[in-house]
Amino acid sequence: MTPTTNIREWPFRLRPPQILAIGFALVIALGTTLLALPVASETGQPVSIVDALFTATSATCVTGLNTVDTPTTFSLFGEIVIVLLIQTGGLGFLTLSTMVALLLGKRITLKERLLMQEALNQLTVEGVVRLTKYVLTFTFICEGLGALLLGLRFSRDIPLGQAFYFGIFHAVSAFCNAGFSLFSANLMDYRGDLLVNLVITTLIILGGLGFSVVADIYTKRSWQRLSLHSKVVLTTTFWLIVLGTILFMALEYTNPLSLAPLPLNEKLLASYFQAVTPRTAGFNTLNIGALRPVTLFLLIILMFIGASPGSTGGGIKTSTFTTIAVAVWSIIQGKYDIEIFGRRLPRGMVLKALAVAAVSMMLVVTVTGVLLITEQKEMEIVLFETVSAFGTVGLSAGLTPQLTVAGKLLITATMYSGRVGPLTLAFAIAQRLGRQGIKHYPEEGVIIG
Amino acid sequence: MTPTTNIREWPFRLRPPQILAIGFALVIALGTTLLALPVASETGQPVSIVDALFTATSATCVTGLNTVDTPTTFSLFGEIVIVLLIQTGGLGFLTLSTMVALLLGKRITLKERLLMQEALNQLTVEGVVRLTKYVLTFTFICEGLGALLLGLRFSRDIPLGQAFYFGIFHAVSAFCNAGFSLFSANLMDYRGDLLVNLVITTLIILGGLGFSVVADIYTKRSWQRLSLHSKVVLTTTFWLIVLGTILFMALEYTNPLSLAPLPLNEKLLASYFQAVTPRTAGFNTLNIGALRPVTLFLLIILMFIGASPGSTGGGIKTSTFTTIAVAVWSIIQGKYDIEIFGRRLPRGMVLKALAVAAVSMMLVVTVTGVLLITEQKEMEIVLFETVSAFGTVGLSAGLTPQLTVAGKLLITATMYSGRVGPLTLAFAIAQRLGRQGIKHYPEEGVIIG
Ligand SMILES: [K+]
Ligand SMILES: [K+]
Repeated sequence: MTPTTNIREWPFRLRPPQILAIGFALVIALGTTLLALPVASETGQPVSIVDALFTATSATCVTGLNTVDTPTTFSLFGEIVIVLLIQTGGLGFLTLSTMVALLLGKRITLKERLLMQEALNQLTVEGVVRLTKYVLTFTFICEGLGALLLGLRFSRDIPLGQAFYFGIFHAVSAFCNAGFSLFSANLMDYRGDLLVNLVITTLIILGGLGFSVVADIYTKRSWQRLSLHSKVVLTTTFWLIVLGTILFMALEYTNPLSLAPLPLNEKLLASYFQAVTPRTAGFNTLNIGALRPVTLFLLIILMFIGASPGSTGGGIKTSTFTTIAVAVWSIIQGKYDIEIFGRRLPRGMVLKALAVAAVSMMLVVTVTGVLLITEQKEMEIVLFETVSAFGTVGLSAGLTPQLTVAGKLLITATMYSGRVGPLTLAFAIAQRLGRQGIKHYPEEGVIIG
Repeated sequence: MTPTTNIREWPFRLRPPQILAIGFALVIALGTTLLALPVASETGQPVSIVDALFTATSATCVTGLNTVDTPTTFSLFGEIVIVLLIQTGGLGFLTLSTMVALLLGKRITLKERLLMQEALNQLTVEGVVRLTKYVLTFTFICEGLGALLLGLRFSRDIPLGQAFYFGIFHAVSAFCNAGFSLFSANLMDYRGDLLVNLVITTLIILGGLGFSVVADIYTKRSWQRLSLHSKVVLTTTFWLIVLGTILFMALEYTNPLSLAPLPLNEKLLASYFQAVTPRTAGFNTLNIGALRPVTLFLLIILMFIGASPGSTGGGIKTSTFTTIAVAVWSIIQGKYDIEIFGRRLPRGMVLKALAVAAVSMMLVVTVTGVLLITEQKEMEIVLFETVSAFGTVGLSAGLTPQLTVAGKLLITATMYSGRVGPLTLAFAIAQRLGRQGIKHYPEEGVIIG
């Protein structure tokens, strides 16, 4: 059996993850060239090729880590290149990963209903075109509304034209979970602004749920009828935000450099924002470098889990995390059926979740190890920055602006792997399902634990 | 089906992990009382109850972390209490965990040959007595030979009687993977001594392989005929030591505070020693606090993996690590059969390994988080000390002697959980195997990665 026979409906020679990997590399190459031009620079003095590569990768992979300050380094031309890279990366990923999710969903649930089959038929060429249209419509509605609200708000501080330009840039950056900002202080000056906080976090969450979940909600309009995937994603997202907010507030409540000086409502708002942003938007309304070590540790965990599959966000994904958690809990209870929401999770899915989590952890551990050598900094901030790059989060505890050239290249590679990797891995696994070894060895156990 | 019907051969009312948990708690309580007596103190001024509890737990759980300096704090009486606690904890665990391994092995391989069935028959009362006799014989042969060689070597530096007392103490401490030392500088003064290095590391490795592996080698005397478990444990142990040595040497070669000043042969010897000791002996011949961050990171990984099941060592265990690694590699390749050494690993075993690793990680993450709050130290050394306590390793990057009372109690609880926990967990899972839910829910997938 050749790989191509596994997914018959896909009409092209390259598999979606290959298209994604090559496409992203080409977009990054083009972006690097444009950002390295003198016209892209605020001062006319072109930025170094390494910084251009870093910025182009960070934008295309919707990460948001910055070795240079966006507004003071790049001209209007440079900024427009950045927002176009974000939109291309975000949309391209959203479209392609939704297709992959559909293809995978089809292969895995086999005789069961196809995820979203009501919304989308077979993945023929017309299906692909229709899907892309749905995704584009959804994206532009969210970004358009967000840009409008943000533009109106910003117009109270800056001229109208600039305000709407800023509104569009931040709406795109938020929906695509990119975290790039035209404010040097990121969103710290809007820490207490309810409108900006709610618009930005809502865009982040909508972009991070994954298109299939949004389509599922749109077509079903009833919790009971939602697919298991949607239920898992929505429940996990809800609890990560609620628990993240409570924990963040508890841990930083008395920190004079973060929450302590704020009134109670701003404490709550800032905690909510900082609980949403590590999954995996990367905006910040507080100085991340001033947070307590234990809070950085909490953010590292949230960043590693990340957003949901087929979304603009990164990380190992909410569904992966919950699948592992539920499986572990079942195994401890001695249940062989791994059950959630009245459904049994296929055993192969648990193994796949294990593979995604283990490979991600290996990547993070390896990159952290190498960065500890090249950067000679404390493990705390090195691990933070590595997970932030891997999860395409973009929060920084202060290391990125000080990175050595080797460090910049390594983080660049990590951002790229973090964006393209998990999807490619998941696809590769699903694609090879069913290719069983011909020869079965006899079974034998080892002692665990 | 009641739990007791699952393992019929065990003739007592309490399960082995319960005996272990209660037994360890009683031994620790007794040890705490004895170590808090004025007669146990070198100065006659009794140590605080918290330090007595910490030391008793550290000795009984063969961890080796110290809030006080053993030789200058404790009298000869105190030291003898400590070595007896080590021997009791080490032997008790070795015996009980070997029984559990046999019971589990029996349940898991089901129709296949019982691990070590040539060496041991059914686990009847006579079987238990015979097993205990084998374990005791093996232990005393190893410790006796070690004590003799170490005593002869130490007699060149200190009076003969004291030399053999030191020999016995360190041989017991090494075989039981305890890491307690009567030298305030631990084994740093013997950094270049080939005999001390080889005797100590050999005792550590023999104690850490697990009795079932030793018995398997003794009865089979042929690689081909060894059980899969023995092959996995021996191969993993070999590669962790070889790669650990090479990586340690590469990372510390130019560190003026560790390897740089040493001649090449001592560099190699010290690297070998420091690669063996984190799994999970806890002796050191170099100052751990002076190692580079990246090296501490390497040691954290080795400490987390730890020794092998049914041994005196801790951690998630070599077999757990390798099972996960092989499973992940198979899943990535799209193989549904998880194969190693011409054998297929049961799917349930992979899920069990996942559960052990995930629960361990959760424990380490939680304890690290709480310690970050109570101790206000960098994540690096907090994580190091937590993993060291969890894996019953006993290496310290400098935090333990400075711990707050809350931190001491938390590390005490972690040492206890790290010793008793994984075995209890593994046993509980195995015991409940087969208790299937009566109602099967319909299967449905989610999207991973
Ligand atoms: K981001
Ligand atoms: K130890």
